[in-house]
Amino acid sequence: MEVWFTERQTDAVTIGLKVKAVLWRERTPYQELAVVESEAYGRVLILDGAIQTTERDEYVYHEMIAQVPLAVHPHPRRVAVIGGGDGGAIREILRHPAVEEAHLIEIDERVVEVAQRFFPEIAIGLNDDRTHLHFTDGIAWAREARDFDVILVDSTDPVGPAEGLFTAEFYKTLYEALGPDGIMVAQSESPFLQPDLLRRVVQGVREHFPVTRVYLASVPTYPSGLWSFTWGSKRHEPEDLRELEAPWRAHLRYWTPEVHRAAFALPPFVKELVDG
Amino acid sequence: MEVWFTERQTDAVTIGLKVKAVLWRERTPYQELAVVESEAYGRVLILDGAIQTTERDEYVYHEMIAQVPLAVHPHPRRVAVIGGGDGGAIREILRHPAVEEAHLIEIDERVVEVAQRFFPEIAIGLNDDRTHLHFTDGIAWAREARDFDVILVDSTDPVGPAEGLFTAEFYKTLYEALGPDGIMVAQSESPFLQPDLLRRVVQGVREHFPVTRVYLASVPTYPSGLWSFTWGSKRHEPEDLRELEAPWRAHLRYWTPEVHRAAFALPPFVKELVDG
Repeated sequence: MEVWFTERQTDAVTIGLKVKAVLWRERTPYQELAVVESEAYGRVLILDGAIQTTERDEYVYHEMIAQVPLAVHPHPRRVAVIGGGDGGAIREILRHPAVEEAHLIEIDERVVEVAQRFFPEIAIGLNDDRTHLHFTDGIAWAREARDFDVILVDSTDPVGPAEGLFTAEFYKTLYEALGPDGIMVAQSESPFLQPDLLRRVVQGVREHFPVTRVYLASVPTYPSGLWSFTWGSKRHEPEDLRELEAPWRAHLRYWTPEVHRAAFALPPFVKELVDG
Repeated sequence: MEVWFTERQTDAVTIGLKVKAVLWRERTPYQELAVVESEAYGRVLILDGAIQTTERDEYVYHEMIAQVPLAVHPHPRRVAVIGGGDGGAIREILRHPAVEEAHLIEIDERVVEVAQRFFPEIAIGLNDDRTHLHFTDGIAWAREARDFDVILVDSTDPVGPAEGLFTAEFYKTLYEALGPDGIMVAQSESPFLQPDLLRRVVQGVREHFPVTRVYLASVPTYPSGLWSFTWGSKRHEPEDLRELEAPWRAHLRYWTPEVHRAAFALPPFVKELVDG
């Protein structure tokens, strides 16, 4: 017998993963949460039927959402992740010795608990002394936040609980929560399959941040395999990398200074969305 | 009623495309050939159940297999494509005014005929005066070929008719078919899902070509969405681009000089395969 998990990535595209076992399944107050053991990608965390992360490819997304701004900010002491309950972005942030506080703002406490149980290598940073967990709404939290150095929007897709994280108003809130060297990065979906969403995020970020840029990374279990991130900063350009040979680089499998710069080289079909 | 085409990309991973119509289906002497009209990617050419090209994303693969070597070779007069019966690589080659002869060596004449009928925008170059069609085995053809400037190996997966195109002996044959400035590029599958194949191609090319490199592009309908190409040349480095502002660039949607260079920035997980 074969068991398959199928995600409807859009109305007209699916990805299917052969499954060895369904390890967990529950309905939290916010969403359906599941963990399956897949043959190709190891354990897979699934929210409302959409793959959030897998053991085998998680490093791409987590390194690229976190290391890109952290390699540029001159002194990333206070960093926050909105969403990202699996802890992968926090793990990447904590590689940087400059970081004094890493805040996770996750609306659904069950995601953190299930990640700690089934994905200990991803969630490892959630137990760190520098990590502060806030089980609350990211928008409300951000309104009160001040003087952050880097804020990552590591959200689910723009339906359900994450919808408000894709608005220009929210990017204004983030601007005010950041200090003068502040950088935000938001995951902004696939330029192939969600071009309108990417365009909307870029326009929203550009309304408030003087430096707005888009970069790309290959995440095989996300729709189309090509993922975009939108960068907003108050003064720093993403090319201004510091400490290229720092020891935190040793364990990375995707990010390098060369990959960092390459990620901002946009094909014309993406550039049209970003500039248009 | 919903109709879906599902490709088993590996034993444990599928992609599914919602289908408006099955436009063509036949068994040729070499393979099963089909064309479907998909909602997400337009028309899709399928050989033995595997997606070869789609109307919506074909430009990525075709630009990147062809423009990368053609932007480097100082005088690409005689160019050949082994496989590639849809004509997309030929179309890209013919954008270069230096090209005098574009040879297509396709074992299965039916692929060309079906592409001309259902994918006229991809197959457009197959009727060009400079194009020469050879319906024969690529290996046998290459043994007799001499003084080519660029040869592209635009093959199907390394099972069935294309198997011999992934061997070190074949790369030696290509070396001998190329002139002193010669460059070959072979599609070499997904570094995420076919890492051993990529490693084998690189080792085989490196046995015969002094400059061996790998580059990447995002093709959403190919397994994992991240595709590799292996470059072998007698003397030219892929960074040595010529004529960056040439008029043939105007219609490209993926390749730019910046994307060209960025494509060679390999994440450590790919670099390990290439160097190891």
